[in-house]
Amino acid sequence: MMSTTTNKPDDKKLTPRSEDFSAWYNELVLRAQLADYSPVRGCIVFRPEGFAIWENIVAELDRRIKRTGARNAYFPLFIPQSFIRKEASHVEGFSPELAVVTHGGGKELEEPLIVRPTSETIINHMFAQWIKSYRDLPLMVNQWCNVVRWEMRTRMFLRTTEFLWQEGHTAHATREEAEAETLAMLEVYRAFCEEFLAIPLIVGRKSAAERFAGAVETYAIESLMRDGRALQCGTSHFLGQNFARAFEIRYLDENNQLQYVWQTSWGVSTRLLGALIMVHGDDQGLRLPPTVAPVQVVIVPIWRKPAERDDVLGSARAALAALTQAGVRCKLDDREGITPGFKFNEWEMRGVPLRIEIGPRDVAASEATLARRDAPGPTSKLKGALSRLPETVSALLDAMQAGLYREAKGAMDAATVEAPDFESLCRQMAGEGGGGLANVYWCGSAACETKIREQTKATCRAIPLAQTVAPRPCVVCGQTANERAFFAKAY
Amino acid sequence: MMSTTTNKPDDKKLTPRSEDFSAWYNELVLRAQLADYSPVRGCIVFRPEGFAIWENIVAELDRRIKRTGARNAYFPLFIPQSFIRKEASHVEGFSPELAVVTHGGGKELEEPLIVRPTSETIINHMFAQWIKSYRDLPLMVNQWCNVVRWEMRTRMFLRTTEFLWQEGHTAHATREEAEAETLAMLEVYRAFCEEFLAIPLIVGRKSAAERFAGAVETYAIESLMRDGRALQCGTSHFLGQNFARAFEIRYLDENNQLQYVWQTSWGVSTRLLGALIMVHGDDQGLRLPPTVAPVQVVIVPIWRKPAERDDVLGSARAALAALTQAGVRCKLDDREGITPGFKFNEWEMRGVPLRIEIGPRDVAASEATLARRDAPGPTSKLKGALSRLPETVSALLDAMQAGLYREAKGAMDAATVEAPDFESLCRQMAGEGGGGLANVYWCGSAACETKIREQTKATCRAIPLAQTVAPRPCVVCGQTANERAFFAKAY
Repeated sequence: MMSTTTNKPDDKKLTPRSEDFSAWYNELVLRAQLADYSPVRGCIVFRPEGFAIWENIVAELDRRIKRTGARNAYFPLFIPQSFIRKEASHVEGFSPELAVVTHGGGKELEEPLIVRPTSETIINHMFAQWIKSYRDLPLMVNQWCNVVRWEMRTRMFLRTTEFLWQEGHTAHATREEAEAETLAMLEVYRAFCEEFLAIPLIVGRKSAAERFAGAVETYAIESLMRDGRALQCGTSHFLGQNFARAFEIRYLDENNQLQYVWQTSWGVSTRLLGALIMVHGDDQGLRLPPTVAPVQVVIVPIWRKPAERDDVLGSARAALAALTQAGVRCKLDDREGITPGFKFNEWEMRGVPLRIEIGPRDVAASEATLARRDAPGPTSKLKGALSRLPETVSALLDAMQAGLYREAKGAMDAATVEAPDFESLCRQMAGEGGGGLANVYWCGSAACETKIREQTKATCRAIPLAQTVAPRPCVVCGQTANERAFFAKAY
Repeated sequence: MMSTTTNKPDDKKLTPRSEDFSAWYNELVLRAQLADYSPVRGCIVFRPEGFAIWENIVAELDRRIKRTGARNAYFPLFIPQSFIRKEASHVEGFSPELAVVTHGGGKELEEPLIVRPTSETIINHMFAQWIKSYRDLPLMVNQWCNVVRWEMRTRMFLRTTEFLWQEGHTAHATREEAEAETLAMLEVYRAFCEEFLAIPLIVGRKSAAERFAGAVETYAIESLMRDGRALQCGTSHFLGQNFARAFEIRYLDENNQLQYVWQTSWGVSTRLLGALIMVHGDDQGLRLPPTVAPVQVVIVPIWRKPAERDDVLGSARAALAALTQAGVRCKLDDREGITPGFKFNEWEMRGVPLRIEIGPRDVAASEATLARRDAPGPTSKLKGALSRLPETVSALLDAMQAGLYREAKGAMDAATVEAPDFESLCRQMAGEGGGGLANVYWCGSAACETKIREQTKATCRAIPLAQTVAPRPCVVCGQTANERAFFAKAY
């Protein structure tokens, strides 16, 4: 039987990751039909294969966000130019990236409108009208929307002029409550990425240089791509009272005193799709964790003689029905005129976690052949009784979810080095592995951070929250450093 | 007991519908916290109460759309100006409504970008790259997104500069298949609106004057608001080969001949929220069909003496748990320092279908008091055993869903008049009932349509698909009319 399932000679292999990671990435995105270039500079088209992954991310993360008490709302796409200018560091941070609408309805506008790069300003303008008393707090809203930042160098999913994201915005009566919310959302993101996307993370606060424009403190989850570069996967900001003062958001407290609110904002975006690809993908294409995969199982019926067709298709359809009934997202690939090998390649490229092959011998033995996406090759295939397919599949999907996380964690740990001095940090970042994560003592000064960036291109990705280290010399200046931080070259 | 549940004197009643329908509508939207005005001209903020209704619409309609085989995708917000100009009637239809981005990243753009008013042009540009052979057809994509049309006169939900919608776009090998798809989606919309939103409809094709810019034929679902004006709730367009020719979308057929594809597009928008309000709302506020209501049941515990509190709250929490367990979207309003009457008014304003009151006597009798939103007043309240609450509630919600549809259908039928001649049509449209739906014989000429519009402000809303009428004189010119059409003043 196996002879019929051998893949045809593949004349369209991806460029291997080891050869050119960036070429591999772009080819995978296009070949798996996740996205396509668009005629608009820096904007991409999310094709159905890619968008379905995003829809699964949205559904699960939305559930988790709502569980915290936040509710969804929708604010205008356009922001009056004067709003952006109200908060000093916010305007400075975003000015170079703005898309500006100057004409509407055939006329020049009196005040240009900015296409939102983020919605702090317009949301806080509304908060100022809605918040009157301590009874109105906490106010927690979340928005799923598109945002636009005029990027010079773009890359599909990772950095595009328009992207999709969620942005949460909250207002609280006290500093403590807002700080707790900032960290609670950071934890929501961490759990979501590790559990649902099987992406291992480092978690921590950002240095001042990497802080969000307008925040008092920025926290982030960061993951490590297989080329040794870090990717920021989500951020949670403690905004203090910066926007509250700029937009006059005050409430009457229980003693009838007017107080400024304390605020947070937090977001993740479609760049998570890039993280999924670069953490889990291999040289055959995408590998999707079962939780997030739009299709978890593809069934490929295999026959040679017309006489075999009905039996094989009958079993395949029964398997489809049983798995669908059990809640597995399952697809039957019964296209004719296409070889099984071609189908295998296509579904491997798209990252479907599990393939079930059913041929005449399988039917005769009342079984099916199961091929895990993360264990390629004929020797890794398993046999499973048709009658117990849902249980078998469910166990394999669970194993694959855990396996992908374990594998990625292993790769991240292997690429994490405790650089003892500046020279070894430089060597690490110049090395073949792309740099990985350098875990270093850093005094916290901007001068040392700048020196690292200029000499190694690495930036401070995260300063872990729980630090149980004794003070040691800063890896750059030798002054006392009370904390360790992760540095890496980043996307 | 009932004395404690009497509402406080209400000093914030809505303007009655009979007095000023438009004032009633705006007050309801603001007071029910469905939406708010924004600082951006013509744009509104969807507040959580309103956005949750939209989320339920999206979830259910998305399921129904996917069942037809369409898949979701996402295309850029921006469209090159040259694209809009490629299809003659499309550019003409949309030119006065466009918002134009002229600057990005601090520089003037070489070619201005249009913020999408609809995505036919950019989607068809992509279709031209994706469609090569008959094997690639049909191609059916749907997109949930924001669009912008620079409207002169705006009204919350009904006509705003930015709104949210879904737009489906399909390409087919044959004219027949595309025409069938156009009508199939029209039927999806009809069933969705009538079943899920309890909104009765008239269904039909549009006159040439009301056709979508670029379509060969436009079909629509129309509903009648309680002020006697019609509202277009959704449209499905047969585009013929207009965009296929403008964007060169061709495929190789089975005989290896290049053919242009045949296309459709179809959409519904956040104006459905306006329809829900104006079809079901009453002078106390919103009334939501249970299917679409974010909160289907609100439980209000009622007690006077502190000693009663624990028992009442205990029963209320048990009821919440039992109903939630049964899949009912249920909320316990245990706010203190607010009278039951105030709570009643608030939840009535927001349209929650069913209120459950639990007081000390209810607890003693192991029952609860149920108040249907569509049957106000103390005399309509029912008693129900606490032990059988889920069954009782489920039956009441079903009855209310059917009841709201029946009531709205009755109102629409009562406001539908078969105007026999032009004079009676004019009288009807000038009448106190706001005009309603006039069912008239119309010869189909643009001249007669214009005369009706100019003299009555009524436009052709729909020409029903199935016509079983004998030819009769046109209500305007007296020439032979082979069809009846619905005319109404419209939003």
